[in-house]
Amino acid sequence: MSSSDVVLGPNQYGKAEVRVVRVNRETPVHTLMDLNVSSLLRGDFTDCYRSGDNSRVIATDTQKNTVYAFAKEHGISTPEEFLRLLGRHFTAQDEVAGGRWTAESYPWERIQVPGPEGELRAHEHSFVKSKQEIRTAALTIQDGEEHLLGGFSDLTVLKTTGSEFSGFPRDRYTTLPETQDRIMATDITARWLFAEDAAAETDFDAVYARVKQLVLEQFALVHSLSLQQTLYAAGEAVLGAVPEIEDIRFVMPNNHHYVVDLSRFDLENPNEVFQAGDRPYGLMNASVTRRDAPARPHAWEWLGGFC
Amino acid sequence: MSSSDVVLGPNQYGKAEVRVVRVNRETPVHTLMDLNVSSLLRGDFTDCYRSGDNSRVIATDTQKNTVYAFAKEHGISTPEEFLRLLGRHFTAQDEVAGGRWTAESYPWERIQVPGPEGELRAHEHSFVKSKQEIRTAALTIQDGEEHLLGGFSDLTVLKTTGSEFSGFPRDRYTTLPETQDRIMATDITARWLFAEDAAAETDFDAVYARVKQLVLEQFALVHSLSLQQTLYAAGEAVLGAVPEIEDIRFVMPNNHHYVVDLSRFDLENPNEVFQAGDRPYGLMNASVTRRDAPARPHAWEWLGGFC
Amino acid sequence: MSSSDVVLGPNQYGKAEVRVVRVNRETPVHTLMDLNVSSLLRGDFTDCYRSGDNSRVIATDTQKNTVYAFAKEHGISTPEEFLRLLGRHFTAQDEVAGGRWTAESYPWERIQVPGPEGELRAHEHSFVKSKQEIRTAALTIQDGEEHLLGGFSDLTVLKTTGSEFSGFPRDRYTTLPETQDRIMATDITARWLFAEDAAAETDFDAVYARVKQLVLEQFALVHSLSLQQTLYAAGEAVLGAVPEIEDIRFVMPNNHHYVVDLSRFDLENPNEVFQAGDRPYGLMNASVTRRDAPARPHAWEWLGGFC
Amino acid sequence: MSSSDVVLGPNQYGKAEVRVVRVNRETPVHTLMDLNVSSLLRGDFTDCYRSGDNSRVIATDTQKNTVYAFAKEHGISTPEEFLRLLGRHFTAQDEVAGGRWTAESYPWERIQVPGPEGELRAHEHSFVKSKQEIRTAALTIQDGEEHLLGGFSDLTVLKTTGSEFSGFPRDRYTTLPETQDRIMATDITARWLFAEDAAAETDFDAVYARVKQLVLEQFALVHSLSLQQTLYAAGEAVLGAVPEIEDIRFVMPNNHHYVVDLSRFDLENPNEVFQAGDRPYGLMNASVTRRDAPARPHAWEWLGGFC
Repeated sequence: MSSSDVVLGPNQYGKAEVRVVRVNRETPVHTLMDLNVSSLLRGDFTDCYRSGDNSRVIATDTQKNTVYAFAKEHGISTPEEFLRLLGRHFTAQDEVAGGRWTAESYPWERIQVPGPEGELRAHEHSFVKSKQEIRTAALTIQDGEEHLLGGFSDLTVLKTTGSEFSGFPRDRYTTLPETQDRIMATDITARWLFAEDAAAETDFDAVYARVKQLVLEQFALVHSLSLQQTLYAAGEAVLGAVPEIEDIRFVMPNNHHYVVDLSRFDLENPNEVFQAGDRPYGLMNASVTRRDAPARPHAWEWLGGFC
Repeated sequence: MSSSDVVLGPNQYGKAEVRVVRVNRETPVHTLMDLNVSSLLRGDFTDCYRSGDNSRVIATDTQKNTVYAFAKEHGISTPEEFLRLLGRHFTAQDEVAGGRWTAESYPWERIQVPGPEGELRAHEHSFVKSKQEIRTAALTIQDGEEHLLGGFSDLTVLKTTGSEFSGFPRDRYTTLPETQDRIMATDITARWLFAEDAAAETDFDAVYARVKQLVLEQFALVHSLSLQQTLYAAGEAVLGAVPEIEDIRFVMPNNHHYVVDLSRFDLENPNEVFQAGDRPYGLMNASVTRRDAPARPHAWEWLGGFC
Repeated sequence: MSSSDVVLGPNQYGKAEVRVVRVNRETPVHTLMDLNVSSLLRGDFTDCYRSGDNSRVIATDTQKNTVYAFAKEHGISTPEEFLRLLGRHFTAQDEVAGGRWTAESYPWERIQVPGPEGELRAHEHSFVKSKQEIRTAALTIQDGEEHLLGGFSDLTVLKTTGSEFSGFPRDRYTTLPETQDRIMATDITARWLFAEDAAAETDFDAVYARVKQLVLEQFALVHSLSLQQTLYAAGEAVLGAVPEIEDIRFVMPNNHHYVVDLSRFDLENPNEVFQAGDRPYGLMNASVTRRDAPARPHAWEWLGGFC
Repeated sequence: MSSSDVVLGPNQYGKAEVRVVRVNRETPVHTLMDLNVSSLLRGDFTDCYRSGDNSRVIATDTQKNTVYAFAKEHGISTPEEFLRLLGRHFTAQDEVAGGRWTAESYPWERIQVPGPEGELRAHEHSFVKSKQEIRTAALTIQDGEEHLLGGFSDLTVLKTTGSEFSGFPRDRYTTLPETQDRIMATDITARWLFAEDAAAETDFDAVYARVKQLVLEQFALVHSLSLQQTLYAAGEAVLGAVPEIEDIRFVMPNNHHYVVDLSRFDLENPNEVFQAGDRPYGLMNASVTRRDAPARPHAWEWLGGFC
C-alpha cells in the first residue's frame, strides 16, 4: 500500500477543560461565573498531520489564552453567549473553517448569613456550590452554519411510587416479573438545540430555568408506564412551552432499585426497603423533536450519547 | 524466623458500602432515607487469620442482610441512630468485641410542581437529589465504650474577597507574593464527636443543620488571614453553640484560584479572571476541641485525614 | 402546538455495563474473559415513548440475562465475536431493527510463582490484572449492515525527548514559546473499523496485538513535530500493515508536562524537572482512513469523541 | 462558654499532590521518576489558627517549590529516600516539629521497538505506563523519630478456584450458603513499616520487588479458607523473608463474583459464568507484625484504612 492511499478523515483539535472563574466586582455584591471551556478547531490541517507543518495550527495554548482574555474583555453573560464569542473569533481566522466549543457551568448560591435582626440574608461575596446538576452548552460551526445547544447533566431524580413496568415481551431469557409499583430513578442529562433564527435574541438563562423546571415537573407528575414514556413527556412539554427549542435529546440511565427479599427473615417488604444498584443499569438515548425541524446532524456529532 | 514470632496486629473486617434506601409509605406523603452503610467488626479472629477457622467469623453477607432487615424492623430515623442499632446488635454477640459502623447519607429534596392555582408545592413522592454535601456518621465501639461522630463531606464554598495571606516566613524556596485580596475556596469535610452523656437524647438532625449553618456563616463572615483561621473560627463557633459536641475535626483543601496574567494581552486583571487549579492544592487537617474534653483516640482511628 | 407536531427522533435503549466473567475450566489451566457489555436496541418503539405501550420493548433485564446465558452457551472467544453473537440474536427478533453492542475487556496475566527448581512459572488459576489499557469493541447493526469496531482506551505513553513544537501562527493571544525539545505524553484511545468482507474470518486477537504494537512503535520511533503527526503516523502504519482495517480513529489528549522554572532558586533546568499538568490539556480527535473506504457513518455515531 | 475553653487539637497542614516528573538525561538512555508528593507540616501553629498570625507558617507554595528544587538538586533515587530528604529539610527549620510526607510513584516501562534484525529492544526514551499497581511511601517524623513506610495500592488479583468459605456462624440473618469453590478477587493495598535501624541502608527498590512478588505468590499458592487467611499468609511470608520490615498492613476488599443462576434458562453453571459485583463488598484491614516489634502508632495515624 502506498501512503498516498491513506487520507486524513474527520478531525478536530484544541484545548480541553480550560477552567475559568470570572468575578464581577463592579458593586460590593459580587457575582461569579465558573466555567470549564473546551475549544476544538476544524479546518485543513492535513500538512500538520502528514508532515508536521504547523504553519496553520493555532496553538492550543493560544486558544486557552483567548478564553481568559475574552473573559476579561467581554465578561461571561451566559455559557451560550460566551461560546458564541469564541467560535466567531476563531472562525474569523483564515486557518479555521469551523469547530466545536463546549462549556460546563457550575452553579453557586449565595451563603445565607444572619442579618442585624437575626433573619437570614444573602451574603455579598460568599458562595456555596450547588451540585444538583451541571449546566452545559455546545456550539458547532460547520459549513458556515452555527448550531447551538443548551443542556444540563446529571440531574438526579427518584420517585417512590407512580411508576409501573409491564406488558413487555417474554422469551426464553425473560425472568423479570411485571410490576405495578416500583421506584423509578435516573440521572437526567439533556441537550437542546436552539432554532437557528431564535438563537440571536434568546434569554438563555430563562430558557434554562424553564426547561429544568418542566423536566422535573413531568418526572413528578406523569404516572409512568416506562422510563421512555417519562422521557418523551418531558421532551414534549419542553417543545410545547419553549418555541426557541427545536429538538431535545436525553441520556437517561435507569438507576435500578431492587426490592430486598426480606421474607427470608420473616419480614414483609411492601416496597419499603430497597437495594440501590450500581451496575448494570438500564440506559436510553432518545430525541424528541419537531416534525418540521430541519436536519442538523452536525450539531450532535462527536458528543457521546447523542446521535 | 519461626512463625510464632509473627502475630496479628490491629484488624477489623466486614461489609462495606451497603446501599439501602428506606421509604416510609405510611401516608401518601412519602419520605425516604438513602444510605451507604459499612459494618466492620473487631474481636478475636486470630484463628481465622492463622488457620482459616471461620467459626467466629460472622459472614460479611450476614452483616449486609442485617442492615436491610433492620431498615425494615426499626426504620431509619437518623444515620447516627441507625448505626447505634447496628453496633449494639453486633456487639451483643459473643464473637464481636467492638467495631466501626459508618454511613453516608444522601439528601433529597421534594420536587416542586404547580398546584391548582399555579403556585409551586412540594410533591408527595418525587424527589431531586441535593448534592451540596454528603452527610456522614461513624460509630466506634471499643473496650465497651461508644464513640459517635456526626459529619459531612465536600461542602464546597468560595469567597471572592475578604481573604488575605501574608506575613509568612521567606526562605530560599519562597516565591509566593503576599496578598491582601484573594479568592478563598475549599471543600469542607467535618466530623464532630458527641459527648458521651449527650449522645442518648441528642436531636441529631437539629445538630446537623446547626453545624452546617454555623460553618457556612463563619466562612462567609470571618475576614480571613489564613484558611487555618477560618477553620478555627468555624470550630469555635460550633463548640460555642452546640454543647453536645466536644471535638470537631476538619479536612480542608485550599482550592487555589490563580489570577491570570493578562498583562501579556495589554489587559488589566484586578482579581476578575482566575484559573481554578486542580493540583497541587493546600491541605489542612485540624481539630478544635474543648480544653477539658476526655481523650478518645479510638473515635478517630482508621478514618483517613483525621488523627 | 399540538402534540402531533412533536415526533420521536433517533433513539436506542438497553442495558449498560453488564459485568460478566467467563471462566474456562476444561483443563486445570483455567482461562478467563472479563467483560463489561452493553446492549442497546433500535427499532420502532414509538408506542412505548408516546403511550407507555411496552409490547415491543424487550426488557433490559432480558438483555442482561441473554449476555449471561450466551456466555455459558457460546463461551467468549473474543469481544468482537461475542458482540456479533448478541447483535445477530437480537436483530433476529421482530421488535429489533438494529442496535449497538459494546464491550470493554480487561486483560489479566497469570501470576508467576516459583516452580520446583525455583524458576518462575505461570500459575494455573491465579491472575493479576494488567491495567495498561482497556480493550474495547463495538458492533453497530443498522439498515441490515454490520459495522464492527475494535479498539483500546487509555494506553498511556510518554517520551522524554524526540518531540518538538514550532512554526505555529502567532497572534495577539499567543505566548507559547517554540520548543525543539519537550516531553510528549498522551493517553491513546483508538477504535478501528473492520472492512465488511474481512470481518468474518479475522483473527481479532492477532489484529489487536498488532495494532497495539504498531501504535507504540510509532510513538517511540517518530521524531515528532506535533502530536498530530505522531497520530497520523500511527494510523498510517496500522493501515499499511493490517488490511482488515479500513479506518482508525484516535482520541488523544496532550498531557502537558511543564518545565519548572528553577532559575528562581539559582538552579538550571535543562528539561530535567517537570510539573505534570491536569487541566487544561490539548485534545485531538482524528481519523486516518483508506482513500477508497466506503462511507460508514453509522459505525461511529453516538460514540463520544469519534465523529 | 469562653473561647479560652476551646483549644486546637491535632493538626497538620501543607501542600498535597505535587506532581513531579524527574528525567535523568545523563546518557542517551533516559530514566524517569514520576511522583505525586504531599508535604504536611506539624508544629506550634496555634497563633495562625487563633489570630491569623502567619509568622511561623511556611507557605504551602514554598513546600511545593522545595519539592521541585530538591528533585533537581538531589535527584529522586527512590520514593522513600526522596521523602526522607524532604522531611529532614523541613524539620531542620525552627517552625517545624514534625510532619508527614507521602508519595505515590507511577511505574513506567520502556516501549519495545524492532531492532535492526527485527527483534524487539527497549527504546531509549519512550515509555508506556504500567498501571498494575501504584507504589506508595510515607514518612512520619514525630517527637524526633522517623517512621518510614513503603507500600503499594490496588494490585488487583483473582483466582478462579482454590478458595473456600465455610464453617461460619449462622443466625437469623444468615443466608449465605457454604462454598468449597469460589472466585476470590481483591485489590491489595499494603503498607510496610521499616525497622528503625534498617531504614538507613535498605535497598528500597529491592524490598519493593520482593514484597510484591511474595504477596502475589501467596495469593496464588495458598489454598484459601478465607481472604483473612490469605492476607495473613502474605504478611507472614513478607516478615519471614524481609528482615528490614517489622509490620505490614493490608486493606483488602473482597471483590465478590456471584455465580449467575442459569438454571432459569435450563443451563448448568458449574462456576463458569459470574457477575462481577460493585457494591457492597467485603472489606478487611489487618496488620501482621513481629511479636517483639516496638509500638509505633504515629507511623499509621491519619492514613485511612490503617490503624
